[in-house]
Order: sequence, then structure tokens, then C-alpha cells
Amino acid sequence: MALVNEHFLKLPGSYLFSDIAKKVNSFKITHPKQDVIRLGIGDVTRPLPPACIEAMHKAVDEMADAKTFRGYGPEQGYDFLIEAILKNDFAPRGVHLSPAEIFINDGAKSDTGSIGELLRWDNSMAITDPVYPVYVDSNIMCGRAGVLEEGGTWSNVTYLPCTEENGFVPELPKHRVDLIYLCYPNNPTGTTLTHEQLKKWVDYALANDTLIVFDAAYEAYIHEDNVPHSIYEIRGAKKVAIEIRSFSKTAGFTGVRCGYTVVPKELTAATLEGERIPLNQLWNRRQCTKFNGTSYITQRAAEAIYTPEGKQQVKANIDYYMQNAATMRKSLEAAGLKVYGGVNAPYLWLKTPNGIGSWRFFEQMLYEANVVGTPGVGFGPSGEGFLRLTAFGTHEDCEEAMRRIRKWLA
Amino acid sequence: MALVNEHFLKLPGSYLFSDIAKKVNSFKITHPKQDVIRLGIGDVTRPLPPACIEAMHKAVDEMADAKTFRGYGPEQGYDFLIEAILKNDFAPRGVHLSPAEIFINDGAKSDTGSIGELLRWDNSMAITDPVYPVYVDSNIMCGRAGVLEEGGTWSNVTYLPCTEENGFVPELPKHRVDLIYLCYPNNPTGTTLTHEQLKKWVDYALANDTLIVFDAAYEAYIHEDNVPHSIYEIRGAKKVAIEIRSFSKTAGFTGVRCGYTVVPKELTAATLEGERIPLNQLWNRRQCTKFNGTSYITQRAAEAIYTPEGKQQVKANIDYYMQNAATMRKSLEAAGLKVYGGVNAPYLWLKTPNGIGSWRFFEQMLYEANVVGTPGVGFGPSGEGFLRLTAFGTHEDCEEAMRRIRKWLA
Repeated sequence: MALVNEHFLKLPGSYLFSDIAKKVNSFKITHPKQDVIRLGIGDVTRPLPPACIEAMHKAVDEMADAKTFRGYGPEQGYDFLIEAILKNDFAPRGVHLSPAEIFINDGAKSDTGSIGELLRWDNSMAITDPVYPVYVDSNIMCGRAGVLEEGGTWSNVTYLPCTEENGFVPELPKHRVDLIYLCYPNNPTGTTLTHEQLKKWVDYALANDTLIVFDAAYEAYIHEDNVPHSIYEIRGAKKVAIEIRSFSKTAGFTGVRCGYTVVPKELTAATLEGERIPLNQLWNRRQCTKFNGTSYITQRAAEAIYTPEGKQQVKANIDYYMQNAATMRKSLEAAGLKVYGGVNAPYLWLKTPNGIGSWRFFEQMLYEANVVGTPGVGFGPSGEGFLRLTAFGTHEDCEEAMRRIRKWLA
Repeated sequence: MALVNEHFLKLPGSYLFSDIAKKVNSFKITHPKQDVIRLGIGDVTRPLPPACIEAMHKAVDEMADAKTFRGYGPEQGYDFLIEAILKNDFAPRGVHLSPAEIFINDGAKSDTGSIGELLRWDNSMAITDPVYPVYVDSNIMCGRAGVLEEGGTWSNVTYLPCTEENGFVPELPKHRVDLIYLCYPNNPTGTTLTHEQLKKWVDYALANDTLIVFDAAYEAYIHEDNVPHSIYEIRGAKKVAIEIRSFSKTAGFTGVRCGYTVVPKELTAATLEGERIPLNQLWNRRQCTKFNGTSYITQRAAEAIYTPEGKQQVKANIDYYMQNAATMRKSLEAAGLKVYGGVNAPYLWLKTPNGIGSWRFFEQMLYEANVVGTPGVGFGPSGEGFLRLTAFGTHEDCEEAMRRIRKWLA
């Protein structure tokens, strides 16, 4: 008989955001007249930049004419987009990559979830805690996370707590690990690492032959100078890191799906015999076998982000969201709450008052202020006692949500 | 140190179509004035149906306005598209599926490549031979194919030859297997199974607790009555089969990326202890963790295929290609060649004259007639001595290619 991959059965019942959606739906069914403001899921609300809209209309028209129609594109993405990325996202920061080191994808989640296919199932791994659930869940699915232990942790995963006490800067693992996921600016805490802080991780990886998967999906929200936008700004990082980027939060692409993954040619992993294998060639093979490229129309939209108008429009949207973040920080602090993040990231990490648990605070806020957040503990044990709020709403919703929270807590 | 997934290193050097592209490029560099006609890769050339173009322009405009903007969609796809699929692709054939059994994807290749994640790595598998390379390569990558043996076959794969002798109808495996990939209408041979022939496979799967992955990417090309469009037209198939569909060849979506996978709720696989696990729930979890849905704009384009205008336009494109197929068949037969397929499929399976090997015939045809095909042996050992030609070119190119081949062989 066909045997199931039993690692799947170890997965906790359902995905964090589905749980939240269910709870919100129950509330709405029992309180049909209440207007709920959602600051939970990190989904954007501003429309796409006009430059992207224009580029898509043009690309759609190309698809209507046999002379300009495009069928299968390169699995790795079109050169026009890869060139724009190299020229705008990396060269100005002194990072020089070749086109073959960039792989256009249909959003960061796909590659974040699949990148582990390149590695043996039994590599040891570390994650910061709290963490974006996909890093753990995708490793549970292939057995790499090990078995679920009491307390909700996984046997082959080293958890690196990010707490108020350490200023949300994780310590290096005490035992060496093979694989580390880092996300900066961080989801969910909204905090960042300085150049010096990130350098420690690259040096650790170089010294320990560790692979870093660096998730830079929120890079566009960095406003402070000493925060690296790319891990490759750190010397030696090309030898140890894969970087994953997304246009979802940069330019509102959550509904059109595009991002990219950088796999430098210098980056290798080892066979059991110690032979070094370039991961670029393996990822290329993986993509050519299991992916057929991103929509041409979407790639044209992404290219438009890098035009002068596109850049201005993207900046305006990010400024809009960051204005929300500032309003929220100020308002929540005025209500006597402790809040982190929101300076170089669209997320605020709110400490629940009086040590209330995350889920309980989530429910209270839903039922009493009609505002939806994301319970911090949903991102890992160290998230207990926190709630994530996103700055992706409209100004009006954000202000109204803050009014409600202040009123509720008063 | 991070250890690489060594199964990747077992993969043959590169992907069939990259090899072909390299050979064609070498030819073009050494013969810059020759005009090459490509009937190799199965990529469409007709522009998208006007109904799809219109739907995409409308969807792009929705993305330009905050009131109609769509961010993250359901990972499983939008209901509007799922409903159109159920109503048009299945209900008229007496197949009743629920919306939760359909998963919209970004093209059949992604899901074909990833579906094996749901199964233990050591399930035994069977493929027809010749076969679409992704079925084998994706299983090599996770170790399921076993080790490469002399003669180019894999130790854990049962090959089911499709030859002139058996009329390209594979025999049932002699030993039971856990997993079978079937593709009908077939890529590369262009042949089909009748209702009775496919029923044997479903009955085998029911009797042997075998999972069938049924690739129906070319379903829209079926013209004869006794050829099932969906495996679910066979009684009992919902218990044993996953069906994968694509809009790529149906409506020219190779560049915009959309298809869908059907995982019936009745379909289960077993744990080692014999517990039956519904694969629908596992695939849902896989998609929610490693995929973020298909572009909203693309899904609106796919929905438009099912409008009255869309259906007419799709039919016109398919008729166009099938007219090519008829021209090609007639022409090649007139040149004294044996040719199969091309009646319910956009592929022709050409027997090389005088027992010439596939690659040799490929190169001769490239250098002497300047026409590109795909060497049959690239699809598996039983493809030796054959060449695949696609009917996806323009009428003019097809006719010119046939003139050249006839002249060359005369």
C-alpha cells in the first residue's frame, strides 16, 4: 500500500493564521453588528503602485498578440528583472552578484518552505524564538525537526530566545548547528540587527560551517543607517548564506506573487565524504524540475518597482505604513503598554499587561476592543506574553483601533 | 557542517530541454544564417484568448484601487475559479467533487514535482516509459527512485514500456507498486487510453492499494468519444487517484502559470501501523505551509476560460493546433515515416527511419532540415528510436518544417 509521509502527522493541528481566522469568524457570527479591525495577518492594504499597474496592462497586451506573446519563461526568471534587482538592490550597497545567483520566485514562502530540500534530512537546525512558523513547519514535514517534546519544542531544533531581557538579539547557539534561519527585520518582533550584530552570525557560520537562510522580506522598511539591508553586506556571507527577498511587503505584491532567492556561487554544503557541493547548481536543478517560472506579467510589474516613478510610489506606500507604525507605538505607549519594533519594520511587538497570556489577551482584545492581533506564542514559546500588531492597515483603521484599545485599557 | 541532500547528486547532469537548448544554440552560433523551426519544447505560440486578456485588464485595474485591491488570497485558490472548474470540467462528465477537493496551483509542474512529499521516501513506484522527466527526477531528489543502474534505469522504479508492439498501451506492473504516474493524453507519445483501458488501472490500484498520480494536462485535446477526460470518470478512482490539470496547453497559460490539482477526500494512504490518512488534509497543509496561492490576476484569467466566449476562443486555439497535428501526420506519413499520436494530443511520436538512434536523428534533422524535435530516448529507454514533435507552432512554420523534412528525406 502507498505509505504516507508520517512526519506530516507530527504537525500541530493547523496553521496559526487559520486558527485566528476561525476565532474571528466565531466572533463575527455571534456579534454580527460589531466592526472588527484586523491588525493580525501581515497583509498589505494599499493598492499596487501605478507604475506596476501600467507595466501589467502593457504585459497583458503583449500576451494578446502572437508577435509579442510569451510562453514558458526561464525557470530562474527573466533577465530584465534580474538585472534590475542586481543594479538596485545590491550594487548600491557594494554587493556584487551575478545574474545566475538570483532566482525569481512566486513569493518568499515557496522558497523558504522548499530550500531545505537541498540538505540532508538530519542536519541540525536553529531558529530564533519567536519565529515565522514556516521555518519550523517545513522542517517538520521532512523529519528534520525531529520529534515534538513536552513544552512544544522539537528535538532537533535549537531555539534561540529573543526576549525583552536580551533586547530581542539572540545569542549564538551553545552547540554548533548545521542550519540557521534568520529573519531581519524580524517577523514577528519588528526588531533588527545592526551591522556588528549580524557580523557575529556570519562569523559564527564561517567558523562552524553553518548555512544561514536569511529572510529579508521586510528589508524595504529599514530606516536606520546601521542596519544592513542584505546579509551580503557582511564580508564572507556569500560563503555561508542564502538570502530570500519578497516584493509582497515592498510593493504590495501579496496578491500577485513575486520575490527572489539569492544563492551565491561560492556557497557550498558537504557530502558525507567531505566533498563541497555548490548549492547554486542544486537549487537551479530543483527549480528547473519543480517550478516553471513566475508569471511574465508579474515579473514586468516587479521590474517597474525599480523605475524612478516605481521607486517613489513604493516609498510613498512604505512611508504610509510606517506612519501607522509611529502612530501605534505612540498610542500604545501612552496607554501604558510596552511596545517594541515598528521603527525599521511594519510589525509592533506588544507586551501584554500584567503577564496575561498571548491567546487570552488576543481574545480579550477581540471581544472588548474588536481589534485582531496575532498571539505572540503562536510564533514560539518565547512569544508568550506578547501580541504582534501589523502597521498594514489604513490610517483610519489604525487610529480607530488605537482609540478602541486605549478606551478598553483605560 | 551543513550536509547536502546527496540524492541530488545522483541526478543525470542536466535537464533534457536544457541539453536540447544547448545543442540548438551551438548550431545557431555555427550557422547564424539558418532559420531554425522549433517543434521541440511543448510551448504554445497562439496568444491568450481575448476573454482572458479582458479579465486580466479588469483584475489589474482592481489591484489599482484600495477598494477592490486583493492581497493574500486563499492558498487553495479563489472560490470563483474552483466553482467554474467543478461546473465545467467535472459536472458535465458526471464527476461530482467538492470545492475543498480542488487546489489551484501555478502550473502542473510545481504540484507534479511536489506531490511526492506526502508519501514516505521508500514507496515503490512505476512509470510508463517513455515518460515526462519530472516524474522521475522529482523522485530521484528525495531518494525514492533508488540508485541508478546500468542501462540508465533506477532501482526502485518499475518501467512500463509503451512500444509499437503493445500499441503504446502499458501492461500492468508484474509486481505490485505503491505509486504510479500516468499521463493521458500521453506526453510524449501523444497516445491515449480508452475508458476500458484506464479502468484496468483503476481496478489495479483499488486491488493493490496503489496511488495513481494522473496527469491530465492535455485533456483539452481529446477529440474521440471513448477517451476519458478525467480519471474520475472511472468508478472508484476517487479512492486511488490524484488528478493534475493545467491551463498551459488548454488556453496558452505557459507564461502566466495556472493549473489545479484534485485530491479527493476519499483518497487515503496508510501509516506503517495501517491507519488510513486522508491525503486531502495533508496536501492542504503542505500548500498552506509552502505556497501562498496563485496570482489573483491569473486566476481571473483562468475563470474567463469558462465563459461562453472563453470556451469558443479556447476551442479555436486547440483546433488550430490540431490542424497542425493533422498536417504533420499526413506529411510525415507521405514521406514514408511511421508516426503515432496527434489525434487526441498535440504531440506526434515519430519513429526514426532505419533504426537510427533518437539523438542522432535529432542532430541530423537539426543540421540538415533545421527543424528541432525532442529525442525520444530523453523520455526514457523505450523512447529510443523515436522523436517527439509538437503541434504548437504556427501553420506556416509547421508547413515549412514538413517541406524541409520531406525534402531532406527524399
